[in-house]
Amino acid sequence: MFGTFIYGPGDVRYEERETPSLTGTKDAVVRTVAACVCGSDLWGYRGLRGEPGQTPIGHEFVGIVESVGSDVTTVAVGDFVIAPFYGCDGTCINCRNGFSSSCLNRNWWDGAQSEYVHVPLADGTLVVVPDVDPDDDALVASLLTLSDVMCTGYHAAVSAGVGAGSTVVVVGDGAVGLSAVLASKVLGASRIVAMSRHEDRQKVALSFGATDIVEERGDEGVAAVREMFDGIGPDAALECVGSKASMDQALRSARPGGMVGFVGVPVGGPELPVGDMFASNVGVRGGMAPVRSYIEPLLKLVLSGEINPGAVFTRVRPLSEVAEAYADMDERREIKVMLTTRPIDG
Amino acid sequence: MFGTFIYGPGDVRYEERETPSLTGTKDAVVRTVAACVCGSDLWGYRGLRGEPGQTPIGHEFVGIVESVGSDVTTVAVGDFVIAPFYGCDGTCINCRNGFSSSCLNRNWWDGAQSEYVHVPLADGTLVVVPDVDPDDDALVASLLTLSDVMCTGYHAAVSAGVGAGSTVVVVGDGAVGLSAVLASKVLGASRIVAMSRHEDRQKVALSFGATDIVEERGDEGVAAVREMFDGIGPDAALECVGSKASMDQALRSARPGGMVGFVGVPVGGPELPVGDMFASNVGVRGGMAPVRSYIEPLLKLVLSGEINPGAVFTRVRPLSEVAEAYADMDERREIKVMLTTRPIDG
Repeated sequence: MFGTFIYGPGDVRYEERETPSLTGTKDAVVRTVAACVCGSDLWGYRGLRGEPGQTPIGHEFVGIVESVGSDVTTVAVGDFVIAPFYGCDGTCINCRNGFSSSCLNRNWWDGAQSEYVHVPLADGTLVVVPDVDPDDDALVASLLTLSDVMCTGYHAAVSAGVGAGSTVVVVGDGAVGLSAVLASKVLGASRIVAMSRHEDRQKVALSFGATDIVEERGDEGVAAVREMFDGIGPDAALECVGSKASMDQALRSARPGGMVGFVGVPVGGPELPVGDMFASNVGVRGGMAPVRSYIEPLLKLVLSGEINPGAVFTRVRPLSEVAEAYADMDERREIKVMLTTRPIDG
Repeated sequence: MFGTFIYGPGDVRYEERETPSLTGTKDAVVRTVAACVCGSDLWGYRGLRGEPGQTPIGHEFVGIVESVGSDVTTVAVGDFVIAPFYGCDGTCINCRNGFSSSCLNRNWWDGAQSEYVHVPLADGTLVVVPDVDPDDDALVASLLTLSDVMCTGYHAAVSAGVGAGSTVVVVGDGAVGLSAVLASKVLGASRIVAMSRHEDRQKVALSFGATDIVEERGDEGVAAVREMFDGIGPDAALECVGSKASMDQALRSARPGGMVGFVGVPVGGPELPVGDMFASNVGVRGGMAPVRSYIEPLLKLVLSGEINPGAVFTRVRPLSEVAEAYADMDERREIKVMLTTRPIDG
């Protein structure tokens, strides 16, 4: 098969590699229908995180089960499945607590921007979706968001306690930030401010339920957001980038006693200013999203047509063009690129 | 009148100073019945926070209203009142949100370890308690805890989301930590671990509802606490000290997806390790307790006899012995000392 490797900054290659096969009794091999590039993949691509040598990459995919181990009971060959961006057993104390991203038997894909992916714990990990036409790009796109970005945006909102009537600002207009806007809408927020200076992203944010757009950043951005909410800021600020600037923006935007929900993978710090948090009573909660725990409830909303999170994909490319997809996202030509294994016309 | 000043590390003096009087129409002057020394007062006493020159000190007191401004409606001369450790208007957006410690008109006492205290916003600040015998030390002690420590411990538990069935570890065995044990019990926690190596404090913790005592600290303390809860730790860790070591202990003790509720005044940092928080999904929320918002509900429990938070006071001294009270607490001879203005026998 072919799969994707990162060799270093700016150097992503689609190359032949060994096709995975079953290694135990609880595992599965999934033939990829669609995968994509995550904002966090770009940290390595931009040289902000060391990835020395040839490393398989990619963690978001949906596909069709190719083979299963003898102990697998909930997944069968031919099923269309969504994989969260990690593998989990679904039975340990952390999974039972709803934090499957801290599963005591958590595992990582050996590169999911590949034609096939080996899934060690199939029953705990994969979610079967009945009656999916794998050539239906729009549906596949929305299902693919449930492997990471939509559930991650949802985690930001849940972590910040967003509920009916909440007021929210979302820091970050990437696919996760836009998903956080949609998640806030789903959870009943009454006012949702999207911080964005890109017209294409503003449009998606508004279609997802944003009520206001703020283009300013830094001190001006904080002032603009606070002014919209009695001069003190909204109940929740959702940090969906992972940089020092975005966390700072979120911390300073939430009202006294408010919450920051954070899901941006922190890159190079920052440490959080506990003295400021003490003075303002702004709490910080979030982290690696327990995606597996959110897939089923959000899947219902996708299948009923209530939400269309796949709108974050602004382009579809064949998986073989993965290097171009990294460049698309790195250069902000696209919000997010879906990589498909089906033949694309034209 | 006489009042307390701090001049520098280890140098606290009870000296004559001008008796406060009304300066506006919304204010009151309260004759102190009892005051006390806060753990945070000790930071200055120990030279960990600069307090140059003669500075009035003290922020916890209960007393009897001596005079009121012409616009005051909820408080009358002769009323027994509890003051939170700050003044607030009770009407601004932050007060209405339940975060009166961020009141837009917040003010600080000009030294509350004094015979009289000037309260600028009497209606928003003071809570009247009917039928109090000011010579009833036990009752006065419990009422005095509502000015700070009991409500602050309660804030730690509320900030961490402690509720029915929660599992909790409390880091810190001072008056606030012990109050956090009692607050967790009130909120319905099913198991409450008190970290303490002092027998007198362990006894109070157990009487307040602690189910377990852990004497170890650092790595051993973390391991001991985690082991008690499926190897992963309890739902909530309440940080009631403010040191780097205690915050570290709390962050590492909570289970994945758990919460740290923090109320220790952070001294000299520490900044919070956002990368660790991301990996564990342990959130951090807390800060300066909105005491005023908690006084009324907790007062009901005190007056009904359901809780006896005044047990944190292990000694009563006349206010004139305030310097000895600082030494009592600094040298850990007492958990907390109540300073009374009534004559003490013997």
